[in-house]
Amino acid sequence: MEYAKLIYALDLFGTVVFALSGVLVAARKNMDFVGVVTLASVVAIGGGTIRDLILRVDVIFWVADNTYIYAILGTCVVGSFWISQVDKLDRRLLPIFDALGLAVFVGIGFNKALTYGTSYLIALILGTLTGVGGGVIRDTLADDVPFIFRREIYATACVIGAMMITLLLLLHVPHTYAIVMGMLTTLVVRLWAIKNAMGLPQIKL
Amino acid sequence: MEYAKLIYALDLFGTVVFALSGVLVAARKNMDFVGVVTLASVVAIGGGTIRDLILRVDVIFWVADNTYIYAILGTCVVGSFWISQVDKLDRRLLPIFDALGLAVFVGIGFNKALTYGTSYLIALILGTLTGVGGGVIRDTLADDVPFIFRREIYATACVIGAMMITLLLLLHVPHTYAIVMGMLTTLVVRLWAIKNAMGLPQIKL
Amino acid sequence: MEYAKLIYALDLFGTVVFALSGVLVAARKNMDFVGVVTLASVVAIGGGTIRDLILRVDVIFWVADNTYIYAILGTCVVGSFWISQVDKLDRRLLPIFDALGLAVFVGIGFNKALTYGTSYLIALILGTLTGVGGGVIRDTLADDVPFIFRREIYATACVIGAMMITLLLLLHVPHTYAIVMGMLTTLVVRLWAIKNAMGLPQIKL
Repeated sequence: MEYAKLIYALDLFGTVVFALSGVLVAARKNMDFVGVVTLASVVAIGGGTIRDLILRVDVIFWVADNTYIYAILGTCVVGSFWISQVDKLDRRLLPIFDALGLAVFVGIGFNKALTYGTSYLIALILGTLTGVGGGVIRDTLADDVPFIFRREIYATACVIGAMMITLLLLLHVPHTYAIVMGMLTTLVVRLWAIKNAMGLPQIKL
Repeated sequence: MEYAKLIYALDLFGTVVFALSGVLVAARKNMDFVGVVTLASVVAIGGGTIRDLILRVDVIFWVADNTYIYAILGTCVVGSFWISQVDKLDRRLLPIFDALGLAVFVGIGFNKALTYGTSYLIALILGTLTGVGGGVIRDTLADDVPFIFRREIYATACVIGAMMITLLLLLHVPHTYAIVMGMLTTLVVRLWAIKNAMGLPQIKL
Repeated sequence: MEYAKLIYALDLFGTVVFALSGVLVAARKNMDFVGVVTLASVVAIGGGTIRDLILRVDVIFWVADNTYIYAILGTCVVGSFWISQVDKLDRRLLPIFDALGLAVFVGIGFNKALTYGTSYLIALILGTLTGVGGGVIRDTLADDVPFIFRREIYATACVIGAMMITLLLLLHVPHTYAIVMGMLTTLVVRLWAIKNAMGLPQIKL
């Protein structure tokens, strides 16, 4: 019970930080409020929606529980209002928040796939998809080559985290610990990659 | 019964005008007939297909009722044949036809979502998605930044129409009237936006 | 039974050659291994996944049978390792392999749609979608105008093959023969188009 609550809280946290990254991109492109909400929603619930479609769940998660939509709307209102503050936040904290969201979504996607009886291999794929899916759609809509195809350790961080979960489950580590350890692994790998990237003189696109 | 027939007729009307806008884009890009049909189909049934996938309907609407496909094929044949006439039509009537299609699809998407027992919030999202979805996919495939992200009142017109439906339903206005009033609202807002845009000396992209 | 085995073998063959085309594109864009696997997967199973979503199957084919994923992973490992050899292969054999994959996927998509009780028209659409879907997603992700919209006979080859199946089924030709004849038709049309394109002094993009 506690575990389910923890997962839910982490899921909403991931939704908010991912929506915030959408708000920032939309603000830079000078979009109106509907555009902001659209982009924020795509980033925050895009990956999970594809996962749910492929898993053939009975009801897509944000149709079943509107809290996700309210969280995105709230993030858009607050984020648009204090956009200058958020933009300052961006350079320092947002990559870290984004890494937190990524880590959480990988674990949640893996977890949900297992609930639906898939193999570990499929859970690994769907966990990674939950993490990176929203960002890929965002970049495709914004007419860029998705970041996933640039040589940054982004999708790779998801795959490594998901492999850690698989390994621990094969070693009969309790489910809860395996998921949390996988999230932490993705987080650490991604933060390490961010630290390295910031040390480089220039980021090539 | 009359109401269901009206909705069905409007739906086919929206399908035809949206397909026609796909034919025009395809013709300008010098596509062959299969390309024309593909683009016209994407615009005409793309939004509704995403809506049906998210609603988890038993059978996607155009798989259940092939009339939609025949309407698109007919539009492509007629549209490609008289393309020069249609292209003249474009500057004067097509934005108005497009606004009609948009308005109709918002109401139909909202209506179908409610039929599947969603909240008003989700119905609003899915109504808007039905209206703008096809056009977004079209622009993404054609390698442009989707029009929805430019500062035109397009998605916003859908949201306002869907909010009108929600408001009227909360005020216990009969279902039929609420849907029709929402369609008219989207239509009026969109036509007003078109009129304003045409008054501008230049449309910036 | 023999027929089912033949279809399955052809399906895996199509998966491998399509994955190989993804590996080649990824290699040219200098992607890391996760990017290679992502692009290869999109090409190899993207079309079939959209088909399965639209058909509302109970379990998406690669979730039900992980062999497809293993085939893609194997192709990526082998393909990345001997990339210089594969790249030489590209100019001579890959378009032919690609045509084989295309032909096979059209027949398989048509076949699966009929199994789910659709009309011939929908089977034709879904057969074509199975053939071209993965490539369209690949080009969209790689930020190009999808090849399907250039004036090459690619989607058209699929449509002609699917029309052949429809015709033969209407003439009461046994199911198995109709599917195989349709595959051969797509193959021949596509190979003829490749031969013509290579005879042209320059391919325009």
